[in-house]
Order: sequence, then structure tokens, then C-alpha cells
Amino acid sequence: MGDEAGKPNAILSSSSTSDQTLRALKPLRCIVKLGGAAITCKDELESINEENLRSVCAQLRQAMTPCKSSSPAKNLGMDWSRRLGNPPVSTIDEFRNKQALDLDNNFIIVHGAGSFGHFQASRSGVHKGGLNLPLVKAGFVATRISVTSLNLEIVRGLAREGIPSVGISPFACGWSTCQKNIASADASQIIKALKAGFVPILHGDAVLDHLQDCTILSGDVIIRHLAQLLMPEYVVFLTDVLGVYDRPPTDPNAMLLREIEVAEDGSWSIVKPNLPHAKGAALPQLTIQMH
Amino acid sequence: MGDEAGKPNAILSSSSTSDQTLRALKPLRCIVKLGGAAITCKDELESINEENLRSVCAQLRQAMTPCKSSSPAKNLGMDWSRRLGNPPVSTIDEFRNKQALDLDNNFIIVHGAGSFGHFQASRSGVHKGGLNLPLVKAGFVATRISVTSLNLEIVRGLAREGIPSVGISPFACGWSTCQKNIASADASQIIKALKAGFVPILHGDAVLDHLQDCTILSGDVIIRHLAQLLMPEYVVFLTDVLGVYDRPPTDPNAMLLREIEVAEDGSWSIVKPNLPHAKGAALPQLTIQMH
Repeated sequence: MGDEAGKPNAILSSSSTSDQTLRALKPLRCIVKLGGAAITCKDELESINEENLRSVCAQLRQAMTPCKSSSPAKNLGMDWSRRLGNPPVSTIDEFRNKQALDLDNNFIIVHGAGSFGHFQASRSGVHKGGLNLPLVKAGFVATRISVTSLNLEIVRGLAREGIPSVGISPFACGWSTCQKNIASADASQIIKALKAGFVPILHGDAVLDHLQDCTILSGDVIIRHLAQLLMPEYVVFLTDVLGVYDRPPTDPNAMLLREIEVAEDGSWSIVKPNLPHAKGAALPQLTIQMH
Repeated sequence: MGDEAGKPNAILSSSSTSDQTLRALKPLRCIVKLGGAAITCKDELESINEENLRSVCAQLRQAMTPCKSSSPAKNLGMDWSRRLGNPPVSTIDEFRNKQALDLDNNFIIVHGAGSFGHFQASRSGVHKGGLNLPLVKAGFVATRISVTSLNLEIVRGLAREGIPSVGISPFACGWSTCQKNIASADASQIIKALKAGFVPILHGDAVLDHLQDCTILSGDVIIRHLAQLLMPEYVVFLTDVLGVYDRPPTDPNAMLLREIEVAEDGSWSIVKPNLPHAKGAALPQLTIQMH
């Protein structure tokens, strides 16, 4: 991830997203990162934190509800799957009578893997490449099965809240890397989905790499690329800690940083609390928590 | 679907798949269509025919096993999900000791929807377009959830048989239509996945349409496009009837057509059995069953 810092032009020029496509897009309101730790149980293989996921989806729905709405509209679900019970004929009829969705949903959501994909990727070494090795090829397949199954669950969770979500896998839309840095990342389909009124749901994925065959493209790298390309009003990181710390938050001495000032050139300094040597040339990962 | 017959050039020129990408591909061996009726229980909402799916995946594995193999290699599964039990550490170790996968897997698999997606699409009218209508937008989301969940199950089924499968949704890779005919269908990522040794698994999907906002792109249209573009040695349709009939096979008088002769110009005639008036200018859908 860090390898890319300071190379935004290289990333942007490698995308085949046309200027015309970009110009036709109204300003993006928000990119939200759902941290893997916030929506899955990190210590239990492929286990979703159902309560957190429900809460996150409800908060996102609230964030997309325009302020002018005096009373929140009835939530009509868009997941009409068998496992939710009988066919939702009454919901479908209510949609039929609705004039508009009343959502300001100009959002992109990117999620991490949490307890999905990590086991498969780390045991097979997908991040190190080498698809000629049967173990790496099998691990690539196993990793994609795991992360796409999480993506489907998140799309379902958001759709149940009435958010018109569409899953878009970076691998499927042809994103690739070169020695782990983004080499090709066409965002055309993401932009077209936004223009059509959908919320694209992307995820960290196993992708092809020009030099080492394959690697893992993390949700954070995807967000950085999309933020540089689409210039959203906000980038919001939902995670399981209170914000950015001066060291790993599991360290009992870790201190929460209250205010970080970022200059135009990307250099930064910590304003609150007042710490010695708290300056840097590269932008740290900003964490803002929604309540 | 029928609208496109006789317009192959229009379809090919609309694709942004570069000649260079195509030339780099070794000849495609086979495109397989898994008919929705063959892998799902058509009369029961979102119900997979597990027995048929297992049998189909095993047959495909067999079809990909090179003839020179005197004894079939031990089948090492590539779905390492929690729901299959404990982490498959022994399988991973066996992959580690393997030199090659020993599969001739230069295949593309496209599946239909069967009892997945049809309910959601038909109740909302996704095929007729109009994303400004909340019902159509919700139906688009619900249809994609349903068809991508089937896609994931088929990828899993194939991976369990040791086939290195990767799901690729037409919507995610930017395929779109114009009045229901394919307008844009970049196959670059499918080709890159093939070159990397994976088996791309596509499916009928809800897609964006330039004139009517959205529609349903069927598995059969996807196959026709890929067959014209990639010229595979075989196109095989796996379905729940014995082949092509002279009328709907549910009709008790339906007759199985044993041999159909197709001329260079696409016209065709039925050779066996000898039927009167059994000629046509357009190619019917060929059905070949694998046993």
C-alpha cells in the first residue's frame, strides 16, 4: 500500500476511465470503508458480526435520507430472497405505488475482508504471486469465493435497508496491479452504476498482477484510488476503534489523535494532543467514526 | 435474443476487446452453458438441484482431465469455506506438494438463472427498463442478488471438484445493451482470466441499457457473443431434455431432431428425421447433451 504514496499521477493515468465519463458524474458525496473488523468476527473464520452489520446498514440508510424528510419513509427491502421467507408480494406492491426512492445515495461503499479471505490468502501466499504453483492458484480461487460471499452478504444487508446496492468485484471489472501497485483500474462501470442511481459495493479482492501473476488488492488501496479519481466530499472509515492512534490501538499506551492537520502538499502534523515529533511527509490513514 | 441474428459484425465491433488481447489467447476449447433448468429446481424459488449440480461439476472435471492421465488425479477442492467444515489444512498441504494441476481447463462456463432471479425480474419488469421507477430499481437489485448468489454456488461446486473457477458478472465487467441488443461487451478480463489458467463463470444478469435504462441479458445471448468472438472448438449446452425438438419438449408430440445441417451462410435443414418444411434461414439453438 505504502509504495504508492506520492504517485497519484501514475495511478490516474493508468486508469482507462474517460474524462467524458467522469464529467458526466455529479460530485460524489461519500466513499465509505467498512472495515473488516467492524462487520466480521475477526477471530472466527468466515463469521459475520450480524448485529454490527445491521447497525451499520441502518446508519448508512440514515445518512442517505435527505434532511428535508420530516419523518423517515417506510423502509422497503430490496432483497427478495427465499431465505427471508415467503415472496415479498406486499413489499413489491408498495414499490409499485411509490413515486421516488427519496434517497441521496450518491455513495460508494468499499469493504475489507475481516475473517473472510484472510485464511485462504495467507495459507496459499496469493499476495506473493506465482500462479504456476497449484497452491497459489487454488488459494486465489478460495480467496475469491470467500471475499465474494462476504460481498454478497453486505449487498444483501444494505438492500434489506432499502439501499439500491450492486456488488462490483475489482477482479471482475478488470482491475490489476504491477508489483502490487495499481496498474489498471477502470472505474467506468462504477461511475455508470452511480449515474443510474445505484450504490456500488466493492471489496478487497484477489487480482492479476503483471509482474508476479497475482496479488491481493486491499480495500484501502481501492479507496485511495477512487478518492483521487472521483474527489468525493467525504471519505469515511467505519472501524472497531475510536480513530487514528499514535501506535497500534491494541497497545495499552496508544493515544487517540484528536486533530491532524494536512497541508496541500500532503505533509501532516498532529495538532491535538501536542506530541513531539508528530509530523510526516505522507498522509496517514484517516479514521472518522460514524455514530 | 432473436433480434441480433444476422448482425454479428455489429456485435463484434461494439466490443472493446482488443485484437492484441485476442491473439494472445490459445484456441478456446469449449464454452459450456449450464441451463437453469438443469441445475436448479425450476418450480421452487431459489432452490439448487444439488444432485444435478454435483454430477455436472464432476462431468466437467472429467471433461477437463487430459486423456493421457492413466488414473485420475486425486481431487483437491478449492473451496476452503467454513461451511465445509474445519479449515482444510491437509488439502492445502497436498496442494503445496503438487507440481501442476494437470487439467486442460481452457473452458468458459455460462449459466442460466433457473429458479434464481426470474421471480424478482418478472415481478418488477427489469427487462422492460425504466430505472426512474422505484419498483424497477428495487427489482434490479433483487435480481442481481439472486443471480449472483447462484453464481457463487456454482463457482463453489466447481471449485470443490478442483476446477479453478472465478465468477465474472456481466454487469460488473461493464456489459451493457441498447434496446436489449448487446452494445458493449468487453471480454478482456475473461480472456485474461483464461490466460492465467482460470475458468471464468458468467451468468445471465441484470445490466444497464442505453435506451431503456436496464434489461436482462440472458446466458444464451452471452454465449452467442463469446462464441462469435472467441471461436471455441465446441459450444455445449447442458439442459434437462435430450436435445433440440421440433416444438416445445413438453408437448407430447415433440420429436427429437437427430441431425441438423448448418450451411456456411447460417441457413439450416433437418437431416434426421426427415421432416417436411424443416428448413430455416436462421440458426436454431443447438443442444448437445453430455453424459
